[in-house]
Amino acid sequence: MKIFFAPEQLLHAPLVELNRGELGPPFEHAGRATHIVTALEAAAIGAIETPRHFPESILCRVHDTAFVDFLRGAHDEWRALGRPGDALPICWPGRSEVTLTPPESLDGRLGHYSFDVMTPITSGSWAAVTRGADTALAGAAWLAGKDGGGRSAFSLCRPPGHDAGRSSYGGYCFLNNAAIAAQYLRDEGAERVAILDVDYHHGNGTQQIFYDRDDVLYVSIHADPSSDFPYFAGYRDELGRGAGDGFNHNLPLPRGTAWAAWNEAMDAAEGIVRRFAPEALVVSLGVDNFAGDPLSHFRFKTEDFARMGRRVAGIDLPTLIVFEGGYAVDELGNNVVSFFSGFEGA
Amino acid sequence: MKIFFAPEQLLHAPLVELNRGELGPPFEHAGRATHIVTALEAAAIGAIETPRHFPESILCRVHDTAFVDFLRGAHDEWRALGRPGDALPICWPGRSEVTLTPPESLDGRLGHYSFDVMTPITSGSWAAVTRGADTALAGAAWLAGKDGGGRSAFSLCRPPGHDAGRSSYGGYCFLNNAAIAAQYLRDEGAERVAILDVDYHHGNGTQQIFYDRDDVLYVSIHADPSSDFPYFAGYRDELGRGAGDGFNHNLPLPRGTAWAAWNEAMDAAEGIVRRFAPEALVVSLGVDNFAGDPLSHFRFKTEDFARMGRRVAGIDLPTLIVFEGGYAVDELGNNVVSFFSGFEGA
Repeated sequence: MKIFFAPEQLLHAPLVELNRGELGPPFEHAGRATHIVTALEAAAIGAIETPRHFPESILCRVHDTAFVDFLRGAHDEWRALGRPGDALPICWPGRSEVTLTPPESLDGRLGHYSFDVMTPITSGSWAAVTRGADTALAGAAWLAGKDGGGRSAFSLCRPPGHDAGRSSYGGYCFLNNAAIAAQYLRDEGAERVAILDVDYHHGNGTQQIFYDRDDVLYVSIHADPSSDFPYFAGYRDELGRGAGDGFNHNLPLPRGTAWAAWNEAMDAAEGIVRRFAPEALVVSLGVDNFAGDPLSHFRFKTEDFARMGRRVAGIDLPTLIVFEGGYAVDELGNNVVSFFSGFEGA
Repeated sequence: MKIFFAPEQLLHAPLVELNRGELGPPFEHAGRATHIVTALEAAAIGAIETPRHFPESILCRVHDTAFVDFLRGAHDEWRALGRPGDALPICWPGRSEVTLTPPESLDGRLGHYSFDVMTPITSGSWAAVTRGADTALAGAAWLAGKDGGGRSAFSLCRPPGHDAGRSSYGGYCFLNNAAIAAQYLRDEGAERVAILDVDYHHGNGTQQIFYDRDDVLYVSIHADPSSDFPYFAGYRDELGRGAGDGFNHNLPLPRGTAWAAWNEAMDAAEGIVRRFAPEALVVSLGVDNFAGDPLSHFRFKTEDFARMGRRVAGIDLPTLIVFEGGYAVDELGNNVVSFFSGFEGA
C-alpha cells in the first residue's frame, strides 16, 4: 500500500474542546495521527511517503477563495486582537437572518464560516490543513499516474476533512481532503468519481460540495443524524439537487449498529457505486464505528474493519483511501491496520 | 413611575460564559437586576410591584410553540443525559443545509434554536424568563388600562429579551419581552405600536418577529453590526419585507459614538416614530452605551442617560420601558436612575 503522510499535520494542536457545556482536552489531537503512523510501520503495511507541495489554488476548486483566505489569516487576526489561545466562534447567523454576507469583524466571520464550537483554529492550523490537502492530493496524483502510480493509496490526513463545506468548517474539519482529491481526479481526466464515506458521522461538507453535480457521486453510511452529529444533514431524503438529483445517497443507521447490519447497508452502497460506473473511488475512512470510540455509538470490533477493507477492495476500482475520524486513540492504529489487512488481502 | 419586577428572574444564574475562546464568569448575571432595584429604591423613582402571572399561551403570540416547549424542557433534558452544569449548543445548521427541521436529539435542538454559545440554559432559566415576560406584560397591561393604568411604566426585565426571535435564542435572551409586550398592546386594541430600541446592540430578535408586519414599527439605534454583536443583522438596508417593507429601521453608529452623534440619530428615530403615528411606544432600554461597559464601545456618561430619558419622554406617547442590556454592573443602577430622572423630569 502506498501511504502518504505530512508530519506538518501535527501542528494543528487545539488546547481545549467544548463538549457537554465544559471545556476539556480535545478528542481530535495530534496523537491520533502518530498512533496510526506507528502502527502502520510496525505492521509493515507500506512505506510512508511525505507528499509534495501542491499549489494552493487547487484548494479553490472545491472551496470559496474568501473562505480559504479567512482560514489562512484567522489565527493571526485573533492574536492581533490580543486574545490568548485558539480562535472559537461565539455566535452565528440565525436561520431567518436577512443579511448573509460575511461580516467585517473577526467574530462575525468566525460565526459566518463555522458550524460548531468544537473546531478551534490554532496557530498551527493553516500549516497543518494545507499539508493535509497535499496528503490527499498526493494520493490522488498517485492514482492518476502523475507521480509513479498504482491502483490504490492511503492518504493519512489529520485533522479530518469530510465535514468542511465549500465555505464552512466544523466537525474538526477545515479543508475537505476527500473532496479536494475527488476534484483532482476529475480534473486529471476521470469522467466520474464516486466518494464512499464509511466514517461514523455523515460527511455533510462533502455532500454540500457535490450536491448539485452528477459527476461526483456521494454515498455515506453513518449514524442517524437525528441522534448524532452533524444533526442538520445526512438524512435519507437528501438525494441531490438539480443536475445532482439522484447522485447523493445517505444510509443512516441507528445507534448500536454492529457489523451485520452495517454490512447490509454496504450492499446497498456498493450497488449504488457500481451503477454509477465511476473511474475512481475515494473512500472517506473513519474508524469511529469502533465500539470503544468515545464519541460514537456503533459496535464494531477491530476485526470488523478488516471485513470493511475487504468490502471496499471488492468494489474493484482504483481507490484512494482518505483518513477521517476515529477517537479511541489507543486502538486507532490497530483498527486502521485491520482495515488494510482486509483491503490488501482481498 | 410604575415599576414592575419579578424576583424569580434572579433564578437564571449561568455558571460560565464563553468569551474570546475561554470560559469565564458571565457578564449577564442576577446582580445586574439587584443593583438596579437597589438604586431605584434609593432614588425613590417609584414603588416596585411584583407582576401577576399571565397565561403561558400569550408567549406564543410572538414565539413558536415548539420553541417555547423546547425552552421549558431543555435543562431537564440536559440533566437527564447525566450532564453537569448549563446547557450549551455545540453546533448549528450551516448556511447551505438542506434539512432545516429541528433534529430529535437535544444537541440538535440546542443548535437549531440557538444562535450563540454565550446564552446558557440553566436550571432556573425557564422560571426566570417566564416571569420576565410577566414583568413586561404587567407593564403593557398597565398602559392598556387593564390593571389600574397610566401613561408610562418600567418593566425591569432580566435576562434581556430583544435578541430572541420567533424561534431562536441568543444574546443572553430567551423570550422577547419587548415583542411580547408590543403584541399584547396590539391585542388589547392599539392599532399601531412602535418599538424604539436604544440598547447598544441591535435587537435582531425583535426585528425578525415583526419584519413582515406593518402594524408594529421597529426602530433601533445601535453599534454597527459590522463590528459588533449580533453581526448578522442590524444593517441599514434591512427595511422590512412584504407588508412590513418600510416598517423596520436600523440606525447603526460606529464604535466611539458619544452623546452628540447619538442624539442626531435620535432625531431621525423620533421622526420615523412620529410619522408612523403609533398609539403606544415600547422602548427597549439598554444602558450599555455607557463608556465603562465591558462589552460595548460607545462613550455615554451617566448624565447622557438623563438626556436619553428626556428625548424618549419628548415623543409624548403612552410608553412602556422594557429593560435590556448593560453590563457595567456597579454603574447600572446610576445609569438607569439617570434615565428616569430625565424621563420623569421632561
